[in-house]
Amino acid sequence: MLKVAIVGASGYTGVELIRILHNHPEVAVTTVTSEQSAGKRISQVFPSLRHRCDLQLEALDPGKIAAKADVVFTALPHKAAMAVVPTFLESGCKVIDLSADYRLHDATEYAAWYEPHLNPELLIHAVYGLPEVRREEIAGADLVANPGCYPTSVILALMPLLKEGLIDTTSIIADSKSGTSGAGRGAKVDTLYCEVNEGFKAYGVGGLHRHIPEIEQELSLLADSNIVISFTPHLVPMDRGILSTVYAMPKGSLTTKQLLDIYEEHYDGEAFVRVLPEGEFPSTAFVRGSNFCDIGLTVDKRTGRIIIVSAIDNLVKGASGQAIQNMNIVCDFPEIMGLELIPVFP
Amino acid sequence: MLKVAIVGASGYTGVELIRILHNHPEVAVTTVTSEQSAGKRISQVFPSLRHRCDLQLEALDPGKIAAKADVVFTALPHKAAMAVVPTFLESGCKVIDLSADYRLHDATEYAAWYEPHLNPELLIHAVYGLPEVRREEIAGADLVANPGCYPTSVILALMPLLKEGLIDTTSIIADSKSGTSGAGRGAKVDTLYCEVNEGFKAYGVGGLHRHIPEIEQELSLLADSNIVISFTPHLVPMDRGILSTVYAMPKGSLTTKQLLDIYEEHYDGEAFVRVLPEGEFPSTAFVRGSNFCDIGLTVDKRTGRIIIVSAIDNLVKGASGQAIQNMNIVCDFPEIMGLELIPVFP
Amino acid sequence: MLKVAIVGASGYTGVELIRILHNHPEVAVTTVTSEQSAGKRISQVFPSLRHRCDLQLEALDPGKIAAKADVVFTALPHKAAMAVVPTFLESGCKVIDLSADYRLHDATEYAAWYEPHLNPELLIHAVYGLPEVRREEIAGADLVANPGCYPTSVILALMPLLKEGLIDTTSIIADSKSGTSGAGRGAKVDTLYCEVNEGFKAYGVGGLHRHIPEIEQELSLLADSNIVISFTPHLVPMDRGILSTVYAMPKGSLTTKQLLDIYEEHYDGEAFVRVLPEGEFPSTAFVRGSNFCDIGLTVDKRTGRIIIVSAIDNLVKGASGQAIQNMNIVCDFPEIMGLELIPVFP
Amino acid sequence: MLKVAIVGASGYTGVELIRILHNHPEVAVTTVTSEQSAGKRISQVFPSLRHRCDLQLEALDPGKIAAKADVVFTALPHKAAMAVVPTFLESGCKVIDLSADYRLHDATEYAAWYEPHLNPELLIHAVYGLPEVRREEIAGADLVANPGCYPTSVILALMPLLKEGLIDTTSIIADSKSGTSGAGRGAKVDTLYCEVNEGFKAYGVGGLHRHIPEIEQELSLLADSNIVISFTPHLVPMDRGILSTVYAMPKGSLTTKQLLDIYEEHYDGEAFVRVLPEGEFPSTAFVRGSNFCDIGLTVDKRTGRIIIVSAIDNLVKGASGQAIQNMNIVCDFPEIMGLELIPVFP
Repeated sequence: MLKVAIVGASGYTGVELIRILHNHPEVAVTTVTSEQSAGKRISQVFPSLRHRCDLQLEALDPGKIAAKADVVFTALPHKAAMAVVPTFLESGCKVIDLSADYRLHDATEYAAWYEPHLNPELLIHAVYGLPEVRREEIAGADLVANPGCYPTSVILALMPLLKEGLIDTTSIIADSKSGTSGAGRGAKVDTLYCEVNEGFKAYGVGGLHRHIPEIEQELSLLADSNIVISFTPHLVPMDRGILSTVYAMPKGSLTTKQLLDIYEEHYDGEAFVRVLPEGEFPSTAFVRGSNFCDIGLTVDKRTGRIIIVSAIDNLVKGASGQAIQNMNIVCDFPEIMGLELIPVFP
Repeated sequence: MLKVAIVGASGYTGVELIRILHNHPEVAVTTVTSEQSAGKRISQVFPSLRHRCDLQLEALDPGKIAAKADVVFTALPHKAAMAVVPTFLESGCKVIDLSADYRLHDATEYAAWYEPHLNPELLIHAVYGLPEVRREEIAGADLVANPGCYPTSVILALMPLLKEGLIDTTSIIADSKSGTSGAGRGAKVDTLYCEVNEGFKAYGVGGLHRHIPEIEQELSLLADSNIVISFTPHLVPMDRGILSTVYAMPKGSLTTKQLLDIYEEHYDGEAFVRVLPEGEFPSTAFVRGSNFCDIGLTVDKRTGRIIIVSAIDNLVKGASGQAIQNMNIVCDFPEIMGLELIPVFP
Repeated sequence: MLKVAIVGASGYTGVELIRILHNHPEVAVTTVTSEQSAGKRISQVFPSLRHRCDLQLEALDPGKIAAKADVVFTALPHKAAMAVVPTFLESGCKVIDLSADYRLHDATEYAAWYEPHLNPELLIHAVYGLPEVRREEIAGADLVANPGCYPTSVILALMPLLKEGLIDTTSIIADSKSGTSGAGRGAKVDTLYCEVNEGFKAYGVGGLHRHIPEIEQELSLLADSNIVISFTPHLVPMDRGILSTVYAMPKGSLTTKQLLDIYEEHYDGEAFVRVLPEGEFPSTAFVRGSNFCDIGLTVDKRTGRIIIVSAIDNLVKGASGQAIQNMNIVCDFPEIMGLELIPVFP
Repeated sequence: MLKVAIVGASGYTGVELIRILHNHPEVAVTTVTSEQSAGKRISQVFPSLRHRCDLQLEALDPGKIAAKADVVFTALPHKAAMAVVPTFLESGCKVIDLSADYRLHDATEYAAWYEPHLNPELLIHAVYGLPEVRREEIAGADLVANPGCYPTSVILALMPLLKEGLIDTTSIIADSKSGTSGAGRGAKVDTLYCEVNEGFKAYGVGGLHRHIPEIEQELSLLADSNIVISFTPHLVPMDRGILSTVYAMPKGSLTTKQLLDIYEEHYDGEAFVRVLPEGEFPSTAFVRGSNFCDIGLTVDKRTGRIIIVSAIDNLVKGASGQAIQNMNIVCDFPEIMGLELIPVFP
């Protein structure tokens, strides 16, 4: 059995890692940490886990944890992650980092959007863990930077178009909508029930969201040219799910049918990407609790624009599920192991 | 007291008309109709009204109703509206029609998106009732075509830009999100609680929604040129509210500050449009139950795009509230009368 | 115009007072206070108020506020209220206190459930402000203790039975369910959107909720005997509303019809209590945003129990609406003034 | 592999059976039926299933289906179930019936609450499938009547008290609250999103709900005396979950600690019942998507009443999960097989 540590287990991505890994036949979660709740059982923090996972939460002592784990999932806020990841690597652990700390390749860019990086030399070393884009590199990595939730939904929506060079890359707009679990479990007025419920709003409007450099980095690599996009995130009164509506102008004339053929070819064999038939579009309701990314698209005949709609569960394909998918690749397990779960509907 | 009939009172816009008009000092609702529930009291259909409005619902006999009313609100499905509106007009009633039947000026366009029109000669006669655009025409109208909910949110978001000729009119994208009350009160699987809750989806993707010709007609008139847009509606798991995120490329260089000044100037004196300060963006939560349209905007410095976000309550400024605003103008009441209501939060 | 101060205006009951009072023709809100947000405009804290109430929030200086107000609403946490209420009274202001500080007549009881009282001599002086029970006393009061939300729903459900001596007073069980706004606007993990949404739970089970002494005090006064009840509150994933399901054994044999007649007689003339016809039961959806208390009841023929179901909006009849009703009585305005609002549905 | 047919697969319990069985290593779902959607793929009806279960829905031909299945789950409305179950039994299939048709032992009682039974002789033959009560009988059954959702939550809450004879059996009140999926997937105005959302209501008040005879039958058998209860169901604005708050007067003096010991002893070894520690109470949020029944209890010292709170997911332990648990017992699989799933939170 692979021994797994979850560092920062008292957040929503932490409990989701435990939920899914419980279903994984080759893994044992042996260590869970939480600064705030050290000493408590994880099932006191999340009663959903009672009788299934009753591990005691430990304080974060990287050396001690490294000694007990083969793979470490770091589910920490940015900055807290890069403070401990080097220790895990030095101890020979494989690390799947769910924070933003190793997603950008360029330390200057990281500093511009976040703060100065503590170990910039690792930025090149880390592999951006979107398996549908770079499965082979992930297989050999010891540090996987697990993608952000918004980036996952936007990159998968655009990948075939960019790899094939089919769109005007200056025309990309991603209008994304996320459930509230993406905001984390910290106590803030803004995410109180009564502040979120029965409301819908945009935030970070005008190119302010920290997922932008990550999205652009990956889109640029796919297109082999520098891409700048308009990205507007929105908050939806629901727990889980991200839906991205992505607009782009084609370079030439393409039918919806032709585009769908291209998407099906690109995602052929992918266990977690479902390209929908013509005329159908995804709903977050149909990926909830699962590692699927559903994609529908069309050509707007009236304006010529291509419109791609993608849906994921932000806590699964957008975080913990993808992290486990990456672990499977790194550890040479079947990629779908533990992740066959059918979405929960309703 | 002005005598008002509400035709089609058993839908969500019907009960909303009654709720707001109850607060109007110069109006008495004297007649309410419903085909399905004729004979029942309206307060049996909507127990919220009990002790405040207990009128008996009548079957729809246009001549009989016209005899009892000065103003008729037709809150019927399209086609049902145009079957009765001529009778009301011939009887000397003023009509505020909440359906789509008189919003398009062009009978061919109406036929293309709906079906052949029963009285196309009235299409020119009717006035499109968006007071912020054509208050004077409304004042003299006997048939006001009350705008659709999505069009209200999109047109108000774009009006100053188009009137000033500031944007490339081929670049407009409106990504709109609506609460579920916009789908009406008919029994359908698609709008059951468990189908909508905890899900978010796009629909009518690719230029299929019937509000498109209405939006384009009005934008084209404002710009004095033919405008075609990309419009994608989405369904939000909440009762009320529409938020539209609108993207457009400016023709020249404009700062957010300059744009906000232009918007403030254009909407100066408007009782129901609130232009938000720089850096603030609307939420549907803060217009709920009110006739406000809140607008925030910015220039995305990274891409140059202008992003405008507008929020309304789809049942108020997007339907019944705007209908009453139109009635106030037609009847020469103060435009805000009965509509001063502060949004309900939380 | 009556000058009104709202002390503690940055909570949900504060903004609700402003919303409703805006609709009141004889009142001007002249002062709003908030410790946390002093210096900001209230409309920055609650953008719903923008263009309708843009007063600047002040720090809480009781003497200064008293000098500017005829009536003061104290919408503070318990303890904070009793620290300032005496100053308002000494300055000649009428006070409507929305906290728990003056609801109990017995200082020992207050100390047992809360903490030692700062001015216990005022406990007898204050009038418990449930107009349907003691309208006359309220009329002459200068300090009205506005009832708690749960107590309002439970007391109105039981009043006719107790006044008529119809039930075994040892048999009362109140199973109450509240929307989340009752938990206030403080940042706590427990009331985050993702913690509340899609969940339903009981809390304070076993007689622990602080509203119990208040309920029992009032029920005992109505019955003229000492009453102890079982009260279980629950948290509902919605913003507003309390529904109480109350069980009691009748002393003798009574039909549903007979009971409804008694309720109708007791509540005859009450503007805000709606006794529903036989076979109908209330929903919080049909009182939302209004000052109504809807009551339905039946006799369970199989067990003989009387079951009464009452519904209120916890922020209106359960807090701010009732406070304004009390103000109207104290100030000799028509009791319904400003409170005619029809519930918002949907 | 055990061949399983799901009859009535296009409802919420149908899709939930498929979701869970997908996780079961010894079972293959080979047949799914739906009258309304025959000919479509089940993944067209429920896009959540796409790529995991794409079986074609068949019309309901009992003989044909029996020939292809070892076990049949009938997830049909009452009456429709009893019309086909005999055929399945005659063909040698084991049947797990999720309808109400075989839950009552007494045909007269069935007729009183539903309608005349089509095959009353099977009522004695069928085993009421609550494993925690009658595991041995289930093991030998060929027709298991899967319990109702409300009954499961109420019976498990009371079983230890009744078996030990600890309460006054005339004092039982069950105040239950259910998510909306319990109302099924039929198109009805009452369960539209906007009718349910932001509202809370009781229904079937006064002993009218059809789950009552089932609850009373089972409680009476446990207590070995005739039990009549007050049962009030409520509708919660959420998808899944039932929480029952159950009140009863003890015969003698018992502490919370003593009661918890009794519950822990009774449920010792049960894989799906979690008795919570003193002072903790369940939330439906922590059983969502799982087969758990969480139980908390206390003695209300002020009134002497015992208050038990139980929580289940109505679609899992209250329907499809329990049905699979029954299948495991009938087929001699480990009882937990396929049901180890951790609840989905948030």
